[in-house]
Amino acid sequence: MTEPRSPRVEFFFDTSSPYTYLASTQMAGLAERTGATVEWRPFLLGGLFQSIGNQAPATLAARGRYMARDLQRWARRYGVPFNWPSRFPMNTIPAQRMLVALREAEGDAACASLAARLFTAYWVDDADLKDPAVLTAAATGAGFDGAALLERTQDPAVKEGLKAATAEAEQRGAFGAPTFYVGGEMFFGNDRLLLVEDALMETRA
Amino acid sequence: MTEPRSPRVEFFFDTSSPYTYLASTQMAGLAERTGATVEWRPFLLGGLFQSIGNQAPATLAARGRYMARDLQRWARRYGVPFNWPSRFPMNTIPAQRMLVALREAEGDAACASLAARLFTAYWVDDADLKDPAVLTAAATGAGFDGAALLERTQDPAVKEGLKAATAEAEQRGAFGAPTFYVGGEMFFGNDRLLLVEDALMETRA
Repeated sequence: MTEPRSPRVEFFFDTSSPYTYLASTQMAGLAERTGATVEWRPFLLGGLFQSIGNQAPATLAARGRYMARDLQRWARRYGVPFNWPSRFPMNTIPAQRMLVALREAEGDAACASLAARLFTAYWVDDADLKDPAVLTAAATGAGFDGAALLERTQDPAVKEGLKAATAEAEQRGAFGAPTFYVGGEMFFGNDRLLLVEDALMETRA
Repeated sequence: MTEPRSPRVEFFFDTSSPYTYLASTQMAGLAERTGATVEWRPFLLGGLFQSIGNQAPATLAARGRYMARDLQRWARRYGVPFNWPSRFPMNTIPAQRMLVALREAEGDAACASLAARLFTAYWVDDADLKDPAVLTAAATGAGFDGAALLERTQDPAVKEGLKAATAEAEQRGAFGAPTFYVGGEMFFGNDRLLLVEDALMETRA
């Protein structure tokens, strides 16, 4: 007899992205309601944009003004804090490498708890994610060895892991963040979480 | 004593836009649930794009492939038919002028009923919205004088009305379609209808 498999959603995320921060705050609830396993997949949004020739949506002035308002509305709807950072865009290469290293060593739950710290540092507390002290403090605060993780961001295998995840996202059709996969289906954007949830419920049914 | 005013949502739409077609199918339900009045505001999305330097989202190949799938998902969620047309993009200038002329003469409910016919003609039945016979049939089918309305698309005041609505949208911060306004607040996209509904409920409260 085969055990029923729990549905699974892959969550491709970069701490640089405001809508991805918002979506990240909803993943625990989504998992609880659907019984799904969440795979936290750190990748590099800037690398993907460069590779496919996309650009940040706020590049257009009118869209940028609207986005600022829209982000506040979603934060309010979700009941989570949100403050536009003083440094934007942010180079999140070291942060994303740290997440890759931690996930490889300790798995998705560990990766999720560090991601929560890093998202909050940048999107709530206006911290500089390029600052090694910020990264170390986030990792230590989440219960991991911050100094060791920081060192691992220079490990060639970790650097390669981040590049590979980004290449995988591109190969699977991603063009932004957050990007979700449920089975062979791709979903883009915080505002598609309701469709992700539908897909997970159908998988379970 | 002042009568309580019903909340009001302005719906800026162009029959050329697939997400606007999807949103258009939800406006009656939205009005019923919220008690809101819907103002149907035909404008020209292509004119807005040209003026602000925006381009259709499907211009990026990966986004285009995803959109085709995403549109089908929303259509399924809404329970409405949807067929990608053989002619895209479509020049909707004559269709949008007809809607401007009808709204000016007969008001929002009339405009909504013609819009429904035109959206269905293009996004379900693959009709050519540049074809005068298609436009006339849509208007006649909705219970109006199709030939007279077609003639009015050449009226300088009607042409000017469509330009003015497009300029108004730009001036109020729009950068795409559908765009909604509730009070001073702008909302962009079919996927923001839930936020539009929240805003209407708050207005009523």
